[in-house]
Amino acid sequence: MSIEELNALCDELRNKIIDTVMKNGGHLSSNLGMVELTVALHYVFDFPKDKVIYDVGHQSYTHKLLSGRADKFDTLRKYGGLSGFPKREESEYDCYNTGHAGTSISAALGIAKARDIKGEDFNVIAVIGDGSFNNGLVYEAFNSVSEINSNILIIINDNHMSITPTVGSMHEYLEKLSAEHEQKVKRKRHETIFERFGLSYDGVYNGNDLQLMIDKLKEVKERIRTRSVILHVNTIKGKGYLYCEENPQETHGISAGSASSTEYSTVLGQTLTGMAAGDKRIVAVTAAMTPSLGLSEFFEKYPERSIDVGICESHAAVVCAGLATEGLRPYYAVYSTFLQRAFDQVVEDICSQNLPVTLCIDRAGISGSDGETHQGEFDLSFLSLIPNLTVAVPKDVEEFRQILLASAHFGGPLAIRYPKDGFKKFGGAPLEFGKWEKLRDGGDCAIIACGERMINLALSVAKIATEEGIECCVVNARFVKPLDCAMLDSLDQKNIITMEDNALIGGLGSMVDSYYSRSQKIIKNFAYPDEFIPHGSVRELIAKYGISIKNVSDYIKNNAHR
Amino acid sequence: MSIEELNALCDELRNKIIDTVMKNGGHLSSNLGMVELTVALHYVFDFPKDKVIYDVGHQSYTHKLLSGRADKFDTLRKYGGLSGFPKREESEYDCYNTGHAGTSISAALGIAKARDIKGEDFNVIAVIGDGSFNNGLVYEAFNSVSEINSNILIIINDNHMSITPTVGSMHEYLEKLSAEHEQKVKRKRHETIFERFGLSYDGVYNGNDLQLMIDKLKEVKERIRTRSVILHVNTIKGKGYLYCEENPQETHGISAGSASSTEYSTVLGQTLTGMAAGDKRIVAVTAAMTPSLGLSEFFEKYPERSIDVGICESHAAVVCAGLATEGLRPYYAVYSTFLQRAFDQVVEDICSQNLPVTLCIDRAGISGSDGETHQGEFDLSFLSLIPNLTVAVPKDVEEFRQILLASAHFGGPLAIRYPKDGFKKFGGAPLEFGKWEKLRDGGDCAIIACGERMINLALSVAKIATEEGIECCVVNARFVKPLDCAMLDSLDQKNIITMEDNALIGGLGSMVDSYYSRSQKIIKNFAYPDEFIPHGSVRELIAKYGISIKNVSDYIKNNAHR
Repeated sequence: MSIEELNALCDELRNKIIDTVMKNGGHLSSNLGMVELTVALHYVFDFPKDKVIYDVGHQSYTHKLLSGRADKFDTLRKYGGLSGFPKREESEYDCYNTGHAGTSISAALGIAKARDIKGEDFNVIAVIGDGSFNNGLVYEAFNSVSEINSNILIIINDNHMSITPTVGSMHEYLEKLSAEHEQKVKRKRHETIFERFGLSYDGVYNGNDLQLMIDKLKEVKERIRTRSVILHVNTIKGKGYLYCEENPQETHGISAGSASSTEYSTVLGQTLTGMAAGDKRIVAVTAAMTPSLGLSEFFEKYPERSIDVGICESHAAVVCAGLATEGLRPYYAVYSTFLQRAFDQVVEDICSQNLPVTLCIDRAGISGSDGETHQGEFDLSFLSLIPNLTVAVPKDVEEFRQILLASAHFGGPLAIRYPKDGFKKFGGAPLEFGKWEKLRDGGDCAIIACGERMINLALSVAKIATEEGIECCVVNARFVKPLDCAMLDSLDQKNIITMEDNALIGGLGSMVDSYYSRSQKIIKNFAYPDEFIPHGSVRELIAKYGISIKNVSDYIKNNAHR
Repeated sequence: MSIEELNALCDELRNKIIDTVMKNGGHLSSNLGMVELTVALHYVFDFPKDKVIYDVGHQSYTHKLLSGRADKFDTLRKYGGLSGFPKREESEYDCYNTGHAGTSISAALGIAKARDIKGEDFNVIAVIGDGSFNNGLVYEAFNSVSEINSNILIIINDNHMSITPTVGSMHEYLEKLSAEHEQKVKRKRHETIFERFGLSYDGVYNGNDLQLMIDKLKEVKERIRTRSVILHVNTIKGKGYLYCEENPQETHGISAGSASSTEYSTVLGQTLTGMAAGDKRIVAVTAAMTPSLGLSEFFEKYPERSIDVGICESHAAVVCAGLATEGLRPYYAVYSTFLQRAFDQVVEDICSQNLPVTLCIDRAGISGSDGETHQGEFDLSFLSLIPNLTVAVPKDVEEFRQILLASAHFGGPLAIRYPKDGFKKFGGAPLEFGKWEKLRDGGDCAIIACGERMINLALSVAKIATEEGIECCVVNARFVKPLDCAMLDSLDQKNIITMEDNALIGGLGSMVDSYYSRSQKIIKNFAYPDEFIPHGSVRELIAKYGISIKNVSDYIKNNAHR
């Protein structure tokens, strides 16, 4: 293909991406910026023999379109359709699954080392954005470049943005390199940081200039025969679609249609901003996702008590612990799946020291179309096992607000987990901290459920059961840990059902099972099975993975008759 | 005090440390190297008003001796005595608990930020070794130095060693800085990496020269009024005790007496080295603990298939995943407590991709005298919740060997967890992968136990029960996940007991409770309660936290009579 034909191809790819994302939702601006670079990669390298790993992987749409998946592209992010992230299961062109930031260089080193051990000959490329570049894994990988001693190509795709503009000293350094390049300052005088780590650095080039990218990639393809190279390119997030170029933050991710809901993040932002006015101890901490967590207003209003550390979830947790040792009250807002990155720090720094840090855990439970790496179905399990930690699951946005208000007076570590959207308000008595509440009485069966989605299902199921002549009590287990033992002791129904938007192992159901293990109760747990849950809509995934009005109603009909 | 008196104090401190560690066990060489620097810190700064955080914290003995704990120092690492690590609960001079590498700078930034928010005035110091300095948290903290914008002092205590000599590019860079300093090369020409991150760098100085340290600390104390400073000092690991200076690796940690045992790590090393001879796919990966994990011989024999990434547990897990995508069989050996650092990578990179990486998890269960931050009582819980992962717990070193041999032919992710010492060999039929085995029959009660310590207790308890006329079956649950459902279905005893060297929540007992939740079985779980377990001997901690022959026997006597 001539360069004109390739440029025309880029236009075509762009249009396909815009059309599909507008229909299906997905990552828009980041993919638009990557079109030329990806086309150049496919032009110069020999995939799938050569291997490319896209960090996080949300920017791999062009790669998917160029590797035999164009005809299925309209199924993007649909249940059973193409994933929005690289998937080995999907194509041999996807050599490594990504989803969480910063893994690409470590994975590339592993793959290159395997190549060298096996005596094979192919190229390994990691493509990483400047946002991910903040993550500690990058440094750990740099540290072992000399030790592992297997050559790779690292491409820094620098668009100056995570979801929000990238923060941090490394990013300032990348900016400085870009500026120097533009000013044609000779960099010969001193080595770059990367050269100090044993990497050959080359940059900064316009990553949206297809011909330049092809030329540069041909050049570095030769150079990585003898050593690892970092190629630093600038791209424009949203390139080629003016609205996206002007609004890269708003168009980072597009949601496909949205029902009328109140987002829990909005409630977090409003409540915390209100609390902070009268309580000087309150500090908000995020890891590069301030707006999606609802904290933009807080950050604007209280900049001196706002900390965005970039995509550094582990570090954020330790900073919170440090703040709390001095009597402050940090609120660390984070998506459920990304909190996994801070597991050790939540255990050792926050909980082992019993510090009053509040974790505000968004996108908990099934999160939907982003799939396996973004579902939040493990947090009740990996949090409940940690001593000293109280785990709360509000039944609706109003209860979330009440728990937040109460949290400022709570003396230990607290986790509050919630989904993106809140649809319901169930009413009920004012919150008693640590206590469950009975939303409905019924002597035949007790349903213990937590979180809006499950409480909603439980109440529907109870109503249906009444029609069958079975009376179900519904208990709102709004504090999953510690269990409300007084409530559990008071339940005299022989039949117990648990319902949670979480994996079974280690979650609410399993703790109830253990609590009643010496009793004669018959307990049925509705929770997700021991599988990774792929992409799809929230509603369809919850049902497909076994929690539906029909499944629970059928169980009750067949088991809970007097 | 005059400098002579202070130097005499250093000698006295050194002798006290040597005497105590020789009796109680503990960290020797690292503490001997830190004496002068710690004395200088206490001389120049005003603790506890000023705050010092020791990274990992194993080098804080001098600090303990200088902060009112000399009279209790002979209780070091004993149950109820002084901890071998900083503990806020122990003294107001310990402002932040450490134990895992790399947290000190993040914590210092959090504390300094709190100081600035509150408008207070004190100094915050992080003391971090060159080994910890490899950890990704350090980079994440550097990245937010400008964002957080609160001044701290970072002291790099560079003794060229983790437990083993420090590896990695950052360490090579530190070495280069030291060499330049010795050669009196002017460094004016170019900024250090640290200056690029907005820190003021000063070094390299002899950290064992008390007068020099006092002078330097006085100087930087002034400078941190206006910006954050890194002070780079060289110390000699083991300083002042010739045997330690010459054998810093062997004297990093001293064990207080040891019974005649076979270490599981020895079996790992021998077995894996043997397997690697005939299987070119086998690669060994460690994070700075090769000898204590038993892999020195493997590393010597197969250097091209050995990777030590330094104290970078997360990165190690991703490298393993990368290796496995190319058909290799990585064995990642790591202590249970440090595997927490790689939780997200085990979930997303290894298990979500269903890759055949074997985690060899040492020091699982109660590990003893290092206390809270080093106990391995959570791994069964945080691993069992991960889909696709098989979790094995060998009953003795021989079964460990069999599981290792079988692992090379197993196609998915596998975790094998074991304690440090193996004392017993229980015999039994050859391993059936994935299957439990009955070690003893008995119709009154079935004891389901895993791991050498618990199997040993279970067999003893069963023997005692026979004397009471109660027959107990003992089941070796050597694969905790997935559960052996066929075996569970075949147990017709109404009374079931589970025993595990792990926390109750999310472990073996809780999975058995869930499995039987709809049955009429009476299940009693023996496992650790929902608490952090402090330091003490393994034997005394297991008993104090509720699992003893007496406790289990009493339960059986009172509950399992026909």
